[in-house]
Amino acid sequence: MLTSLSNDRIKAVSALIKQSKMRKQKGLFVVEGSRMVSEVPAALLQELYLSESFAKKKENLPIIEKLTAPTKGRPGLEPVLVSDTVFAKMSDTMHPQGILAVATQPSYNIEDLLTGNTYLVLENVQDPGNVGTLLRTSEAAGADALFLSAGCADLFNPKTVRSTMGAIFRVPFFYYEEIRSFLVKLDAHGISTYAACLEGSEEYTKVSYGEKCAILIGNEGAGLSKAAKEGSRFRVRIPMEGQVESLNASVSGALFLYEVKRQHSGI
Amino acid sequence: MLTSLSNDRIKAVSALIKQSKMRKQKGLFVVEGSRMVSEVPAALLQELYLSESFAKKKENLPIIEKLTAPTKGRPGLEPVLVSDTVFAKMSDTMHPQGILAVATQPSYNIEDLLTGNTYLVLENVQDPGNVGTLLRTSEAAGADALFLSAGCADLFNPKTVRSTMGAIFRVPFFYYEEIRSFLVKLDAHGISTYAACLEGSEEYTKVSYGEKCAILIGNEGAGLSKAAKEGSRFRVRIPMEGQVESLNASVSGALFLYEVKRQHSGI
Repeated sequence: MLTSLSNDRIKAVSALIKQSKMRKQKGLFVVEGSRMVSEVPAALLQELYLSESFAKKKENLPIIEKLTAPTKGRPGLEPVLVSDTVFAKMSDTMHPQGILAVATQPSYNIEDLLTGNTYLVLENVQDPGNVGTLLRTSEAAGADALFLSAGCADLFNPKTVRSTMGAIFRVPFFYYEEIRSFLVKLDAHGISTYAACLEGSEEYTKVSYGEKCAILIGNEGAGLSKAAKEGSRFRVRIPMEGQVESLNASVSGALFLYEVKRQHSGI
Repeated sequence: MLTSLSNDRIKAVSALIKQSKMRKQKGLFVVEGSRMVSEVPAALLQELYLSESFAKKKENLPIIEKLTAPTKGRPGLEPVLVSDTVFAKMSDTMHPQGILAVATQPSYNIEDLLTGNTYLVLENVQDPGNVGTLLRTSEAAGADALFLSAGCADLFNPKTVRSTMGAIFRVPFFYYEEIRSFLVKLDAHGISTYAACLEGSEEYTKVSYGEKCAILIGNEGAGLSKAAKEGSRFRVRIPMEGQVESLNASVSGALFLYEVKRQHSGI
């Protein structure tokens, strides 16, 4: 059992939790809690850490057995036992459940992703909770993939991972390099682009979304860049009453995605 | 200038920031940052605290003058100067701007609020960010008031206040005591109630919302209580694809409110 914070494995996990740079470098990330850890596809599960008291509880046996059993292409996994005190310090949560996994970051080929019908494109959405919620909503609304700029909150930040509620393992995503050329690429694949912005001349429920479409959502404070607005085929707004200047990014994205879903399902 | 954390005024502000109980007892709350402080109606503004460096900057003079000028029924306000170090410790934010106000909590009479058309009712929504975002979205969607159970996150929690983006001063709200009798009250005022829940037999875009309606949104994990679902006239769901089990509470509320808005505006 690991009982020291200076143990190399514990230090490596802490670094993956805290440092986006380390996550990128290793291609790994950390998932916490029974619920989220059970969502990790077996092929991506690299290491399993259990607190002493989690491992001792009878009711946790089934999940531990399921996670550590040998699967196609991978031998059985040996869980790492950690003292409760060290686990609590290593954990990113206030009330750690005592189970945590190191997983390989899923990755996708952009060309494979462009054969669907509905996409969400984020530009510099900086709140990890918003990015995670937008991924979760993308799955619920039936979007085919999420595209992110490098300036967005890291998808593998523990707060983002939690907010996705498992969608991080189910909705494909891709980090694009530059918005102008990326919009050209979408266009070349027959995907119409709709920039969500206050200056939009049409309301989001009065626009007809093509069979293949992508919705662009910008930064929480500044909205979409000029390049994103100009490079999109349509500029569309959500009507707002009162003195509200903008909606929360997760809310805007959801309203658009569900309007697309409504139109695509022919209501 | 106040230079000590043990000064009584500083301690009183810190208590208002940290303790919901203290906010309730005094009927006050704290608002931070130039943007939010300028939203405080003059009649509610009680005290103004400025950090030394905020007060020194020329570009801040207009806002300081505007906030401290005498207004109808109130003499001029004397701002309290605080050293930068003490201000940073008193503030709830990571990067304090150096301006903070103590304000009276707005309060409303329930009978006055029941003459509108669209309402949002929250039951035990626990995340302060969700409660704040739902108030902000209520304003944007043109809802007439927000109703909350005692189990909801405190509206005057600094994080909630921030998430409202000023809507806390513009959208009326009321804390109801018990859901069953509150739903009966709404019904008696001709307001139809729609419970957002997974078991809803109808989809939210296929339901016809009456001229006067209230949408009920429940707790992030558990959803609405049995009493809330049974006491509502309709049980309605948002369709979800993939393996998503639920949507974020702010997202669900927004989808409902904007669907009501769409129907009410006759699209």
